[in-house]
Amino acid sequence: MNQTSTTRNDSRPVSPSATQLVPLSLSQARLGSSGFWGTRSRINAENTLEHCLRWQERAGWLPNFDLAASGKLPAGRQGREFSDSEIYKLLEGYCWESETHPSDDIEAIIASITARLVAAQESDGYLNTKFGRPEQGARYSNLEWGHELYNYGHLLQAAVARLRTHGEDALVALARRVADHICETFGPDGIQSVCGHAEIELGLMEFARATGEGRYLEQARLFIERRGHHSLADIELGRDYFQDDLPVRERTVLAGHAVRALYFAAAVVDLAVETGDEKLLAAVEHQWENTVATRTYITGGMGSHHTGEAFGEDFVLPSDRAYCESCAGVASVMLSWRLLLATGKARYADLIERTLFNIVATASSDDGRSFFYANTLHRRNPGVASDPNEQSKRADSSQRAAWFDVACCPTNIARTLSSLGAYLATVDDNGIQVHQFADADVCAEVPGGTAAINIQSRYPDSGTITVTVMDSPATPWTLSLRIPEWAEGASLRVDGEVHEVAPGYATLTRVFTPGTVVVLDLPMIPRVLAADSRIDAIRGSVVVQWGPRIYCLESADLPEGAHVDDFVVDPAIAPVPDGDRLLMQGWLSNPERQPWPFGLPSPAAPGTPLAVALTPYHRWGNQGPVTMRVWLRSS
Amino acid sequence: MNQTSTTRNDSRPVSPSATQLVPLSLSQARLGSSGFWGTRSRINAENTLEHCLRWQERAGWLPNFDLAASGKLPAGRQGREFSDSEIYKLLEGYCWESETHPSDDIEAIIASITARLVAAQESDGYLNTKFGRPEQGARYSNLEWGHELYNYGHLLQAAVARLRTHGEDALVALARRVADHICETFGPDGIQSVCGHAEIELGLMEFARATGEGRYLEQARLFIERRGHHSLADIELGRDYFQDDLPVRERTVLAGHAVRALYFAAAVVDLAVETGDEKLLAAVEHQWENTVATRTYITGGMGSHHTGEAFGEDFVLPSDRAYCESCAGVASVMLSWRLLLATGKARYADLIERTLFNIVATASSDDGRSFFYANTLHRRNPGVASDPNEQSKRADSSQRAAWFDVACCPTNIARTLSSLGAYLATVDDNGIQVHQFADADVCAEVPGGTAAINIQSRYPDSGTITVTVMDSPATPWTLSLRIPEWAEGASLRVDGEVHEVAPGYATLTRVFTPGTVVVLDLPMIPRVLAADSRIDAIRGSVVVQWGPRIYCLESADLPEGAHVDDFVVDPAIAPVPDGDRLLMQGWLSNPERQPWPFGLPSPAAPGTPLAVALTPYHRWGNQGPVTMRVWLRSS
Repeated sequence: MNQTSTTRNDSRPVSPSATQLVPLSLSQARLGSSGFWGTRSRINAENTLEHCLRWQERAGWLPNFDLAASGKLPAGRQGREFSDSEIYKLLEGYCWESETHPSDDIEAIIASITARLVAAQESDGYLNTKFGRPEQGARYSNLEWGHELYNYGHLLQAAVARLRTHGEDALVALARRVADHICETFGPDGIQSVCGHAEIELGLMEFARATGEGRYLEQARLFIERRGHHSLADIELGRDYFQDDLPVRERTVLAGHAVRALYFAAAVVDLAVETGDEKLLAAVEHQWENTVATRTYITGGMGSHHTGEAFGEDFVLPSDRAYCESCAGVASVMLSWRLLLATGKARYADLIERTLFNIVATASSDDGRSFFYANTLHRRNPGVASDPNEQSKRADSSQRAAWFDVACCPTNIARTLSSLGAYLATVDDNGIQVHQFADADVCAEVPGGTAAINIQSRYPDSGTITVTVMDSPATPWTLSLRIPEWAEGASLRVDGEVHEVAPGYATLTRVFTPGTVVVLDLPMIPRVLAADSRIDAIRGSVVVQWGPRIYCLESADLPEGAHVDDFVVDPAIAPVPDGDRLLMQGWLSNPERQPWPFGLPSPAAPGTPLAVALTPYHRWGNQGPVTMRVWLRSS
Repeated sequence: MNQTSTTRNDSRPVSPSATQLVPLSLSQARLGSSGFWGTRSRINAENTLEHCLRWQERAGWLPNFDLAASGKLPAGRQGREFSDSEIYKLLEGYCWESETHPSDDIEAIIASITARLVAAQESDGYLNTKFGRPEQGARYSNLEWGHELYNYGHLLQAAVARLRTHGEDALVALARRVADHICETFGPDGIQSVCGHAEIELGLMEFARATGEGRYLEQARLFIERRGHHSLADIELGRDYFQDDLPVRERTVLAGHAVRALYFAAAVVDLAVETGDEKLLAAVEHQWENTVATRTYITGGMGSHHTGEAFGEDFVLPSDRAYCESCAGVASVMLSWRLLLATGKARYADLIERTLFNIVATASSDDGRSFFYANTLHRRNPGVASDPNEQSKRADSSQRAAWFDVACCPTNIARTLSSLGAYLATVDDNGIQVHQFADADVCAEVPGGTAAINIQSRYPDSGTITVTVMDSPATPWTLSLRIPEWAEGASLRVDGEVHEVAPGYATLTRVFTPGTVVVLDLPMIPRVLAADSRIDAIRGSVVVQWGPRIYCLESADLPEGAHVDDFVVDPAIAPVPDGDRLLMQGWLSNPERQPWPFGLPSPAAPGTPLAVALTPYHRWGNQGPVTMRVWLRSS
């Protein structure tokens, strides 16, 4: 901990004291307003935040605080025990947005929400609309399911965003009172337990970094070290549901509820970094490696089971029951980002890219006003279009829904898109590293002074990425560009030279002159991939990946009445690009249904040859209710 | 309804007024004490019932009634809202057992439990330990989850068993008061809703048959016709969870919670039969056909998802998440038995056989003192041996457990085994039909008088079944023997003649003389089967069936350290019998784990050739904690 104050140059979600790579602030890495991510960031600013605010008013979750302030609770309270956190996540989004797309309206919204929270906070710092009043459960009486500390974690992250984009204010002061209350209540002499849903650890870690208060870090450390020692009840889902089955240092792979596991692992990286605990960092790296090798979907999605919203066992990756919660995608990016900063290894940026393009981009509709809660890889029935005026069940729709009874995902996507610029690039002692390809201006300190670069591309529709040096000191520094793991055969053009570059980081060390153009060419060749033979659920199937994007087949692109399960692909014939879609050869096969579906093997019935158009997975569900497959049958 | 009184000759679980086939009573079809089922019936009588009684005392579920009687509830109450029903299911088992294996001890136990129930019943007939007292939920205030009517359904089934094996007594009188209370409370002018867990419909239907009280049938009809009209809340799992999404006449396939769906469908068959409603019967037949064609496991198991303990969509039959609850197996037998009686079609008896050998026989251990709650077809981790003194989580063990927090299955298996004789054979106007092959003595009225037959076999270890006519009138009658759907090439030997017989029912019509021996030869050839190509979860896999039994591979039969997922079978080489096990050729393949499990297709790594022994699925889990597969990889 070497920080004692923060400025707007620190406007980034993660701000570690000492890591391999140093993250940039939102003022240093500014996402453009066009391109794949610029467009999504703009729509998030224009539509999604307001959409979430309107729903939180309508659902009563924000008014719960007004009821608390006027002493009217518990009567009239609406929403689940974690609804407070949705206000905080939205507030965090608005705070980042105040830097990404500043406006007076945003400031007014932040001030207004803050005032309603301040009015509801109790004199000792406690703040929660669900517990602690007559006829409510007592404070901290249900740590397994009560979510009080979870809610605080998100409040602290909102306050971090406020402090780093604006400075001290009423929200930050409120958060300090909350953090102090937590330290008093759960400190070394306090309640010796943890929250059923990890998150407070992340909030306290970052609030410690933002405020320089070591006691918050110490409290985060206590929570992290306590988990895994059975201080929570042995619930029906098992203690691994909330990672209380095993101390983090003994764990070898992520397990249990995916969002809980990922938030927790991310906080552990923060702790390892701040305390210089290399063994702890190595433990999480090992968990990440095993999780990616055996428990992660081709989309980057995590969570194989609806039951417990949980990771499966090794190689358990069923397409149809893929939960792949949108929040788990966000949490996976949070974990990988911290590991990338700590280690500088490209594999973490690779998974971030995969997850951004195939989970984060999938979760939200084009207009930013409807969402997937779960991101299945196989939809067997078309379902019905969601009513934009109704709350939906969280994992039950083939169509994106406007809002959910449990609505953690919309605000999680919103806060991520509001701060996305901060995930594009980093610096180290040698120069700038570009990890994600989006139209952006990056300005950072490099050896000898300040450098500025502009990044432009039609990525991922094109693999050509143009980096123009806008400003540079007259001394050498290193520009590093990530070459994705799928981009064998990439090349770099600069000053008339062409360099072949391999997956990992391509580096250019030289004296850059303003105007220098570096062009990265990533070979965009659709690839038909198969899975490890131990993955039962997708044996005899293939998937198509083109650049960072996974493709899928929707029934809207089949002849009337045909089901995606009837299409059998010919994997020997390469898919052919058609705009951002791909034409794939195969045949339709729909043998007669038998009274009993098991019997002596018989040769496959001949099908009708057919070429179908595959759609980028992140665009699925935009053609109305459909059946859909990511893994296509090859037999 | 043409019955107004009952005698011990009516000692059978299902006693319809007018069906194609007439079920036999436990005094007419007496299971022997040896052979596959005779042994299990004996162990059930000797061990399982006592085991369940001891646990129900220990878990506090039976003492709950004493607390109710002494006015001490709700303090000290233990168990879930449906724990009362476990006492009733056990009582039903004891009542059937009083006919199957009569003893003074059983009579004393029935009398003792009955006295404790009588003491707890309220003056208006209401009987429940979880609702209706100060500090408890109000009566019928939570029909979705309260299980009050569900509990009554099992109580009525227990009273049916008592009435039919013993006659009127305090238990029957108590049940009449309960049934009258239900009719008053939920009748045409009463609460216009249903129970979240179907079962009361079955209980009322059979109690109406046993007592001749038409009002109970009318109340069952009301409950059946009301379900599907959204009188229950739209819970997170959806209304299909408790079949309240769609009226039964509009349903085309079973859906939602498997046990609920099956109990309900069984009651609907009863209603259709008693009211002569052929359309309603056809609707359930159609639901059964579609469910068997698309939503049933090779083991006969039903329920593809842990979430909601529910049926999956068509062709969703994942091995590893197969729930296949033991109770769903029992419920499936109940449904198929009613359809068999109503229609006389062999397919229902075929599914009963499949389910008995692969679910009912699997659920219970050899000593009848531990149980599977769920019957998975694929176990990826060995887990640990259960502590026989501890309650287990219901679906979480690779080993059978002594008891569960939710312990519906042990008593369901127990009541089934206590009444199993009644499921073996039927009569119609022409003679006797033998549906299941077990050592038994059957005595029934046939044209011209009373006939008696003795059935002996080593089935399913042998396909030779010997039926000896012990007594017969001197007039012709028809003996029908079911030829299972898998038994192509079967033959019947009688009086020196050999007749080829096809799947379905083989019939012999003649004047039988005592001492005539009919020998059925079912060809016992192990068969390697594949699945419909629309079942994603088991593509590229095969299963081995031998007679009615499904086989599996346990890691205990592999070289030390090998996992069942590493074994790839050679389906071209037929399995070779070795006792009741099968030797199967294949190879072990365990390629190196990659950092990312998806990539360009590569040829399969060569494995180590190996012959492994497959075990009958019902015997799995007896070699200690193991990994296990039913569907073996063929690629």
